[in-house]
Amino acid sequence: MKNNNIKIGRYSFEEYLAAAKSFHGYAAPGVIIGGIMVDFAMEHMPEGVLFNALCETSSCLPDAIQLLTPCTIGNGWLTVRGLGLFALSLYDKYKGNGVRVFLDSGRLENYPEINSWLFKLKPKGEQNKDLLLEQIKEAGRDICGMQKICIASQYLGKHSKGNILSCSKCGEAYPVKDGSICLSCQGKSPYT
Amino acid sequence: MKNNNIKIGRYSFEEYLAAAKSFHGYAAPGVIIGGIMVDFAMEHMPEGVLFNALCETSSCLPDAIQLLTPCTIGNGWLTVRGLGLFALSLYDKYKGNGVRVFLDSGRLENYPEINSWLFKLKPKGEQNKDLLLEQIKEAGRDICGMQKICIASQYLGKHSKGNILSCSKCGEAYPVKDGSICLSCQGKSPYT
Repeated sequence: MKNNNIKIGRYSFEEYLAAAKSFHGYAAPGVIIGGIMVDFAMEHMPEGVLFNALCETSSCLPDAIQLLTPCTIGNGWLTVRGLGLFALSLYDKYKGNGVRVFLDSGRLENYPEINSWLFKLKPKGEQNKDLLLEQIKEAGRDICGMQKICIASQYLGKHSKGNILSCSKCGEAYPVKDGSICLSCQGKSPYT
Repeated sequence: MKNNNIKIGRYSFEEYLAAAKSFHGYAAPGVIIGGIMVDFAMEHMPEGVLFNALCETSSCLPDAIQLLTPCTIGNGWLTVRGLGLFALSLYDKYKGNGVRVFLDSGRLENYPEINSWLFKLKPKGEQNKDLLLEQIKEAGRDICGMQKICIASQYLGKHSKGNILSCSKCGEAYPVKDGSICLSCQGKSPYT
């Protein structure tokens, strides 16, 4: 049996399960596979390079990135783009070059429970969670693909909010570049 | 001197500074004020109600939510809408009713360093970080406004990804509802 001593970042496999449960609410398969993917990607970033992360799905994987890297939604070093792909990239935050790690669906033949999960072949209630976790641990990086990438220039650099003023309608501070009143007062409020 | 024993969620003020530094990379003013706001909002949610969070800015505040509530980007209980307002809401995930907490710029008269920070009146290098932190601790909830809200129905409920297939171009698993090939292969790839 291989991968008995699998590490995910600074965690043992079991420690990572606990960290995922604590942050994400439960040890979701996507956060566990995601952790293995993030760990794989980090190992391929040159030491000392300040990197950002781009996540190609909003499901589960962003939390693996936030658990294992310095990149979070709130510090702006993690960007989530809803492309619907179970993949992420880490890239030099100034130059844009880095690596992309994806879940390679062509390598799931020996891991039918992972295949079932990824392609949603069974209703959630019928998933064998123990077997799924066992296959994730067994598979490790075997099911991950890696590519060198360079991020498009529009995603590089910090985008300043520009000047801030009080909205003349609601009174709250807002970026002037959004218009003469804030976006919420312009009708984009999510509340009824 | 008031607010000497301020608590932020389960943390003391100093413990929360350390948690913010560990997760966000540094104890950013927005994560600290945000923590006070999230704590205020949580106290007004009825016990036992499962709630989601909506954050009206992508800067700093989402990390306060992720530190203090069960809501994260990856578990889908936190939604970030870039309205440019320093405000968040917590709401009953089934019914949509809840509270919105915002930084009330009309109450900053006695806290000039917070006012300077919010309206970006000084370059970052000229901020007095110690004074800013002191004023944040001193102000506590005094600078927070609260409103009852109800979230619009389109933000309620879970949106299923639907069926998943392999993209006929790149081979990766993608939601069929995105089209005959995945969004990335449709030209939305963020890589060059």
